[in-house]
Amino acid sequence: MSKMLEETRQQPSALARTLREGLGTLRDLQRRFANRRPRLVVLAARGTSDNAAQFGRYLIEITTRIPVSLAAPSVLTLYQCPLDLSDVLVVGISQSGESTDTNAVLEDARIRGAVTVGITNEPQSTMSHLAEHTLLARAGHELSVAATKTYTCQLLALYLLASALGGPVDLDVLERLPDWVERVLELEERVGEIAERYTFMSRGLAVGRGLNYANALELGLKLMETCYVVAERFSAADLMHGPIALVERAFPVFVFAPPGVTWRSTKVLLDRLEELKAEILVISDETNSQASSLAVRLIQLPALPVAAGGPEDLYTPIPYIVPAQLFAAQLADMKGLSPDRPRTLEKITRTM
Amino acid sequence: MSKMLEETRQQPSALARTLREGLGTLRDLQRRFANRRPRLVVLAARGTSDNAAQFGRYLIEITTRIPVSLAAPSVLTLYQCPLDLSDVLVVGISQSGESTDTNAVLEDARIRGAVTVGITNEPQSTMSHLAEHTLLARAGHELSVAATKTYTCQLLALYLLASALGGPVDLDVLERLPDWVERVLELEERVGEIAERYTFMSRGLAVGRGLNYANALELGLKLMETCYVVAERFSAADLMHGPIALVERAFPVFVFAPPGVTWRSTKVLLDRLEELKAEILVISDETNSQASSLAVRLIQLPALPVAAGGPEDLYTPIPYIVPAQLFAAQLADMKGLSPDRPRTLEKITRTM
Repeated sequence: MSKMLEETRQQPSALARTLREGLGTLRDLQRRFANRRPRLVVLAARGTSDNAAQFGRYLIEITTRIPVSLAAPSVLTLYQCPLDLSDVLVVGISQSGESTDTNAVLEDARIRGAVTVGITNEPQSTMSHLAEHTLLARAGHELSVAATKTYTCQLLALYLLASALGGPVDLDVLERLPDWVERVLELEERVGEIAERYTFMSRGLAVGRGLNYANALELGLKLMETCYVVAERFSAADLMHGPIALVERAFPVFVFAPPGVTWRSTKVLLDRLEELKAEILVISDETNSQASSLAVRLIQLPALPVAAGGPEDLYTPIPYIVPAQLFAAQLADMKGLSPDRPRTLEKITRTM
Repeated sequence: MSKMLEETRQQPSALARTLREGLGTLRDLQRRFANRRPRLVVLAARGTSDNAAQFGRYLIEITTRIPVSLAAPSVLTLYQCPLDLSDVLVVGISQSGESTDTNAVLEDARIRGAVTVGITNEPQSTMSHLAEHTLLARAGHELSVAATKTYTCQLLALYLLASALGGPVDLDVLERLPDWVERVLELEERVGEIAERYTFMSRGLAVGRGLNYANALELGLKLMETCYVVAERFSAADLMHGPIALVERAFPVFVFAPPGVTWRSTKVLLDRLEELKAEILVISDETNSQASSLAVRLIQLPALPVAAGGPEDLYTPIPYIVPAQLFAAQLADMKGLSPDRPRTLEKITRTM
């Protein structure tokens, strides 16, 4: 069995550990922000961590109303133009804590007086030393080059960060996430059966919206890294603005379709894709009854706990990525590829 | 001849008009920002205009040091979570001025007391009425669904905006841009010869970094919309973090390679791509002597005027996208496709 699949299965315990051990940092951060909320949050990351940052962008804006910017590290590292960061919170996200340009952004931010937070798996990493506060993704050592448990633990750490910033995040629901992911993992065999059909896929599209947009980015990245499928990633809205011209009969499209405010626009897209006779695979859950009545292939997750107060899809991103991870890991295996060691890649990438 | 090719050729006069008629708004904006610079710039757009916004992100951060955020309109339109926009400048970019979610972001921002600017081709559009200030992209009516002259005129408008925010933008160099684009257009036939080779391409990668990252997004979008090529788009750094696993022998990769601070990291990528025996097409210019000595296919632009003071690639994005437009328009034609009316697309896309 691939390490990737093994590590996908380890997520319930990794998530429980990340939550338990993150509560101390959460309290520190709450104190830090009690009198002075940042006016802007900047998130810096690369690769899978950058997909987690995309989730953080939606989560923080939706729950705290503070604008978020995803850093373009080259503005600092190549153009050497440090930004005006007064009253800004700068967050670096990196599995290893050794991503050079992400760390450069953090280091500069700290010098400039910004509040800094690092989200990383490694308590002894450069990032942990650079950042004023560290939220640890307690995923344990990740052996597969294709990240899985690191991604979901980063998402969990971002919920804690949103909570520290005053966002209405329900910690009780976070506590129930590991169980829920456990139940989603029971779909492994069913997802494997579906994946078989895609053995010869060479191109595809991954689509999500809002809080699940990051999952579309992450599924696409997994398909590229582990299965060598050229997988374009779009929000449902951006796809309609041009790239939908790509879609022809039997073109594979993967759509995250949680219940809640994004459903209506997702449904408009699904209807259009059906007209175009695309080959659609929808990831949804039992609470979205409209998705289950669609005439498409469906991975249906067990009903998710809905929290009072937040948007209906607020806690969907962690469980929703799990079938996508199971899909990519098993598809890679069927194609005779190793998702743990994609050709030409190393676990830690150092870029300028 | 396709309208797309015709409109690509119209860019010198469209750019000259945009500059000439934008100088008045530039002075208004300078006065507006004289005493109070915004603490954050939010750019809202979709499709090609969103690629222009990506350029604006780098340009504004590099020249003014003000952080920039690219809006996620669904935070407002679907989640109904308006952001805290005090002392924020919100800029909407839309060819038609009728992009519904971009306009929703502008309208909300104006209600919330943010300074608002619209960048659009249409002086009578909803956007022109919603925004406090309008910078007109004087591209004239654009008939092709695939935007060309609108994109470069939006880029020019963003230079004016950066200048209004106090960025060291050299208006004399902007004045020389139309001539320079005229000279790049002389490459049409040569680009057509190169494009022929790609008639059967179904997948590819477009890569740029920093100020030219937006051009990679735009070339990829053009290849998707007009040639139905699944073209992934990456910054040179993000490509190294995972997706480079896609690249195999003869995999087509298009690389923007201007001189200046991004060159070193671009060269690292090019070396790696050569090892992988990818099929590389580089867009560069005469001043980057290292690019001309590479053993790859090369579209070499005439030497560009370098301004004193700014980074060496500051004025490259407008001329550099022109060969990419010529490439996509001619490749579509060779494939018997109409770039003016891609299947399943309309000129104005309305999304929630």
